[in-house]
Amino acid sequence: MKRLLFTGFLFLGIIVFIQTPVVGQPPLPDLVSPEVHPDKTVTFRLRLPDAEEVKIYTQFTEGEHALTGDTSGVWSVTLGPAEPDIYPYAFIVDGVRIMDPNNRLYFPNEHFKHSLVEIPADTPQVHSVQEVPHGVVSYRYYSSETLDTTRPLVIYTPPGYEQNPSKKYPVLYLIHGMTDTEETWFKVGRANFILDNLIARGEAEPMIIVMPYANTYSYDGTTADRGEVLQTALFTRDMVRSIIPFVEENYRTLPDKEHRAIAGFSLGGRHTLATGLSHPGLFDWVCAYAPAVWPEGFEADFENLYADPALLNELKLLSVSCGKEDGLYKSAQEFTKALEMRSIDYQTFFPSGGHTWMNCKKFLAESASKLFQE
Amino acid sequence: MKRLLFTGFLFLGIIVFIQTPVVGQPPLPDLVSPEVHPDKTVTFRLRLPDAEEVKIYTQFTEGEHALTGDTSGVWSVTLGPAEPDIYPYAFIVDGVRIMDPNNRLYFPNEHFKHSLVEIPADTPQVHSVQEVPHGVVSYRYYSSETLDTTRPLVIYTPPGYEQNPSKKYPVLYLIHGMTDTEETWFKVGRANFILDNLIARGEAEPMIIVMPYANTYSYDGTTADRGEVLQTALFTRDMVRSIIPFVEENYRTLPDKEHRAIAGFSLGGRHTLATGLSHPGLFDWVCAYAPAVWPEGFEADFENLYADPALLNELKLLSVSCGKEDGLYKSAQEFTKALEMRSIDYQTFFPSGGHTWMNCKKFLAESASKLFQE
Repeated sequence: MKRLLFTGFLFLGIIVFIQTPVVGQPPLPDLVSPEVHPDKTVTFRLRLPDAEEVKIYTQFTEGEHALTGDTSGVWSVTLGPAEPDIYPYAFIVDGVRIMDPNNRLYFPNEHFKHSLVEIPADTPQVHSVQEVPHGVVSYRYYSSETLDTTRPLVIYTPPGYEQNPSKKYPVLYLIHGMTDTEETWFKVGRANFILDNLIARGEAEPMIIVMPYANTYSYDGTTADRGEVLQTALFTRDMVRSIIPFVEENYRTLPDKEHRAIAGFSLGGRHTLATGLSHPGLFDWVCAYAPAVWPEGFEADFENLYADPALLNELKLLSVSCGKEDGLYKSAQEFTKALEMRSIDYQTFFPSGGHTWMNCKKFLAESASKLFQE
Repeated sequence: MKRLLFTGFLFLGIIVFIQTPVVGQPPLPDLVSPEVHPDKTVTFRLRLPDAEEVKIYTQFTEGEHALTGDTSGVWSVTLGPAEPDIYPYAFIVDGVRIMDPNNRLYFPNEHFKHSLVEIPADTPQVHSVQEVPHGVVSYRYYSSETLDTTRPLVIYTPPGYEQNPSKKYPVLYLIHGMTDTEETWFKVGRANFILDNLIARGEAEPMIIVMPYANTYSYDGTTADRGEVLQTALFTRDMVRSIIPFVEENYRTLPDKEHRAIAGFSLGGRHTLATGLSHPGLFDWVCAYAPAVWPEGFEADFENLYADPALLNELKLLSVSCGKEDGLYKSAQEFTKALEMRSIDYQTFFPSGGHTWMNCKKFLAESASKLFQE
């Protein structure tokens, strides 16, 4: 009884604590959003009593959808069913896209703010968290000579890396898209879980994955020179002079071109081709995912591709991936034609889908299974 | 000239790319927000043509502040000057707090969505990124027997950890507050940079810091039992049965109570006291930061504190930190009185300030300099 009384007091205390704005924050979460149903539909909810209209944008539906408000100020809508995958979405309030306040899964980006919803499949997908040995994702900081500042790197080491202190590993340098950050391949692309699963199945070589921050403007977001977005030359210089040396000094790598790969999405695909094809002594594996290249720029962008095509045929893999509904699909096809005209070997992977991170996961899984194979 | 022409085509291509909604996202960032000025005032900007009113909440000002809209739909306000520190803030649109879309620094939380702005000091602060050796922050996944799922851990290893494969380290278990996540001590509390700086100055022992996910409801945010927030018993069980064994199996730790510390903020301070004081054989160092405890609950919460006070005097450190303007300051004082009545040794650190992450950084820096000292 005495115990019960104390418990009563305790809960009174908690209620006072929760209601008191000691941390300057709204009251505790009382909504579940998103709620994924067994039939693969999803209910999204947002408490927003002051709004006159709330809409939602998702990457598993077309266009925008209105939410319906109830008398308590909670807006909701049920959408789908959706193909099992991980989808970005955002509520739209007064024309601005906002994250779902009740969802911890966010899309790291310097411009838009999306949340993520995972629709699980009946059997786990290549990006699903499974009961397999997990690698480690590390946040590192290196001193960039080119950019004269301390910059972040996210690095995946495969399962077994710590337990085998004499083993050396190949390295994939994996680059994000425009306005993404060094976290996007980890938090949205699930590079770690994809490799954990492929390695567990024996379908990929254990490898280190280095995810640099490819935007060369200051990463605190306060510098003004963001207008110049395609800073490929600067990024390439930073990669060659600082990132690769940092990685090879701090990790047990196989430091030769046979064991170095570079891949990237969108603007990162452009960086991949620019860095990879202009440094044939550095990388033997070059994988462009929906690269931001245009036929008019091929010659200026890839001078040595024209100067010495034979050099590029020494690569072990030059691959171009793109979704067939991607706005850059036509450019990707034109690029492969330009390669073909010069008798340069390449491979393609053109699944369905658009310029999305759902496709990025497919691109990575597809090329990871080819990298560093004899 | 030919080169120039190609470059011209290239930029045309870029513009088309940027304007084409290939990724279903708004056009490129064209605003700088936040912009920190040399006089330590800050200008915040948001493009929101459809809004009738936009306000901002910051933790360096009182109350909310209206932004002024211009004819192009850009809202802005300049606030401050502010004391150098890292402050959470959010725009308020239709009553909901939203992150700043143009700012990459976010506050990981399961309920509110705040951005962060750093006001640099003239000389670097303890949390500033400095040119010192940096430790590594790793995201790990462990199998929780108690919660029957795979759960995340964020782990800091100090500079030199990889280079000294025979050295073993003490461990601080550091717990976040209510609705925070395993990332909050890293991304908001800057635990890594604080320790990097203290270690470089010789003011803290090199230590491993383990930042668990302390909310025992499913971490995908889709389970419904979030109403029960104080799941201290469940968390304690997971800590003792799964987290500590995982850390000691995977890291070179000194696995005894002299080299294990526990600390936490707010609800994490409550977990700290509950776990630390009820396991005197596990931890010799117990640091509560603005703990969510109330005088009425002391007896029920900390039975052994009353049963055997002498046991607690074997601790090397029992400390209570709290800001003097914190809503929990009175409770913190009452708690120390309860300790005093039972002749239990303790230390306090009561700086100015509220229930904030600005104070969390001070609390950590203060206690990290005491931990594991002879």
